[in-house]
Amino acid sequence: MSADLDAERLARAALCRLAEPGDLRMSGLVQQLGAVRVREHLAAEREMDGLLTDVATRLAGIEPERDLEQAARLGIRFVIPGDQEWPTWIEDLEHAGQVQDRGGVPLGLWVKGPLRLHQQQDSIAVVGSRSSTSYGNEVAGSIAVSVAKRGIGVVSGAAFGIDQAAHRGALAGRGPTVAVLACGVDRVYPLAHKQLLDHLADRGAIVSELAPGCAPTRIRFLARNRLIAALTKGTVIVEAAVRSGALNTANWADRLSRRVMGVPGPVTSAPSAGVHQLLRTGAAGLVTSGDDVLELVGVSGDHLVTELRDVERRRDRLPRRDAQVLDAVPVTRPAEPDSIARTAGVRLVDVQAALVRLERQDFVIRTGGGWVLGAAARG
Amino acid sequence: MSADLDAERLARAALCRLAEPGDLRMSGLVQQLGAVRVREHLAAEREMDGLLTDVATRLAGIEPERDLEQAARLGIRFVIPGDQEWPTWIEDLEHAGQVQDRGGVPLGLWVKGPLRLHQQQDSIAVVGSRSSTSYGNEVAGSIAVSVAKRGIGVVSGAAFGIDQAAHRGALAGRGPTVAVLACGVDRVYPLAHKQLLDHLADRGAIVSELAPGCAPTRIRFLARNRLIAALTKGTVIVEAAVRSGALNTANWADRLSRRVMGVPGPVTSAPSAGVHQLLRTGAAGLVTSGDDVLELVGVSGDHLVTELRDVERRRDRLPRRDAQVLDAVPVTRPAEPDSIARTAGVRLVDVQAALVRLERQDFVIRTGGGWVLGAAARG
Repeated sequence: MSADLDAERLARAALCRLAEPGDLRMSGLVQQLGAVRVREHLAAEREMDGLLTDVATRLAGIEPERDLEQAARLGIRFVIPGDQEWPTWIEDLEHAGQVQDRGGVPLGLWVKGPLRLHQQQDSIAVVGSRSSTSYGNEVAGSIAVSVAKRGIGVVSGAAFGIDQAAHRGALAGRGPTVAVLACGVDRVYPLAHKQLLDHLADRGAIVSELAPGCAPTRIRFLARNRLIAALTKGTVIVEAAVRSGALNTANWADRLSRRVMGVPGPVTSAPSAGVHQLLRTGAAGLVTSGDDVLELVGVSGDHLVTELRDVERRRDRLPRRDAQVLDAVPVTRPAEPDSIARTAGVRLVDVQAALVRLERQDFVIRTGGGWVLGAAARG
Repeated sequence: MSADLDAERLARAALCRLAEPGDLRMSGLVQQLGAVRVREHLAAEREMDGLLTDVATRLAGIEPERDLEQAARLGIRFVIPGDQEWPTWIEDLEHAGQVQDRGGVPLGLWVKGPLRLHQQQDSIAVVGSRSSTSYGNEVAGSIAVSVAKRGIGVVSGAAFGIDQAAHRGALAGRGPTVAVLACGVDRVYPLAHKQLLDHLADRGAIVSELAPGCAPTRIRFLARNRLIAALTKGTVIVEAAVRSGALNTANWADRLSRRVMGVPGPVTSAPSAGVHQLLRTGAAGLVTSGDDVLELVGVSGDHLVTELRDVERRRDRLPRRDAQVLDAVPVTRPAEPDSIARTAGVRLVDVQAALVRLERQDFVIRTGGGWVLGAAARG
């Protein structure tokens, strides 16, 4: 079972370099046949003259083992269906996606950061214009603060403007926050957001269906928007001009039967015009605060706050060295101490001692194949 | 018929001094029996000891003939059902009013100004907070300008803030504008609005169901709000705090199956909170401009513009003396030249010469009982 999962992970890691994100044909084939068979099939494909097809040739040049190893060294895990961390609700895309070319269920999610995706089902997307106003930033931030304070995750795109304000608000509210990127999670885009992305990797999660190293493109931004909608229970649009990409996210949320919400603004402000359009047609419900958002989405989240705070508190009390080691223990499959030592940048002997201490507190568990996160770390 | 109408007018003028505006019992009795009979009945009422009732005593002290004469001298007419100018759609209150104590059809409307109410069926109420922001004033003004430019009437309350901005916008758009007051139309309230009210009396209409001289009270403001809603095809709320009187107007508009519309604003602005509440619950439709308003209400009004402009142009070309005389010719019943001379403050011989000139241009018509407005003046 675990070996099957590992084989599937390798195959998905290979295929995700082959097709553009959300490619419906690839996604459909993998759902039907499993990635292992699809990969085998594509790798063996030949033209009539006996030569390998372009796809097979490209596939032959992809080294998913190396990708996964390099990713692990960067603290990046590749989460796929079957993993505990896989956010199963993202598969709603399977039914919503038939309408557009790029609507497929992602083959997997590359994730960096301590947050566990499967615990973020109630999360809220807060998105909007890159060229936002200070009013928009203020409101996005305050909604994110109050959502985060309840322990509910805030999901956004790490772009300038509203995205940035949303992540900052969530960090200020000491709540979970997730950035979904249109490039590899190891890339810094925009460059000015290096510090923000570092914070998110330290305290939240950075997610992408693109393998590490991939660059952002227009098509990848559009595909990314569907993930933001699919990962969350509702999408709040704070400011969006009439042709803003945030409206694309709203559209996906609607298609996925997620709650679409809009924050009104001055009718004299162009960045609010797209939101007003959504509100006027009834495509979005009007919200003015984080409380409005939580009410419309129907989550209170108060139970989560305590849990999260507990875990945070226990984690915060760990000695620095132990915390470093804990952060290097992968969620999705067991790792041996030497691999953890490489990832953490800590000497092997210190890693072994730390693991024993962490095991006593239920932060890690020793299995046949190595060490995995324990109950306390999954909190 | 005309004598009956005059008797009914006298009786209604008397009764409207007896009851508070919108009094359901009075309104119901008058609808059922006619004002003449109700007045006779109330005037004759005696207590068991043979003395006149309080109501009968008060009624005996009311002199509607004098009221109507004085009003006419001030350029004020008392419009009642049966008059051409009576806005029949205001009688929708008959069915909507049963819910509240003060929802009755008004016994009559005291009107000052050149605008004719029966031509304002498509008009739009633009109301909102007295303590509005400059943003609210700007938007109210710009909506009023664009509504007025189409020749569609703007109705509001002549208060500070949004009301004022709405009237000013309508005047700037050179369109019809109507102020509905909670006091006599001869009174200046608030005092600072003397100039605005003068403009409205010159170019639009000032309307009240309270006889000239009556002072504003809280109950009269609430009753006034129902008239603003009932006179118009839709009500636009520009800014309204959570307990604003403008929400009372919105409530009446809804009850009367008029369109309720709200202008969003910053969620950080208290004067927009009441509007956002209406928008959130779906009680109001979101509008951002005059075009949105006209679309929601379903009037284009383009035909009216030309008509109105024509009349305005012809009127504007009249010599000052003739215009003065024309303004003193009552709409609702014929007047003799000496009464017109008194009202206009012009010598009798000059009035007679002016009337002959005005008659040639269809501005006035000579009837058995005196002079009335002609087709050109009713434009």
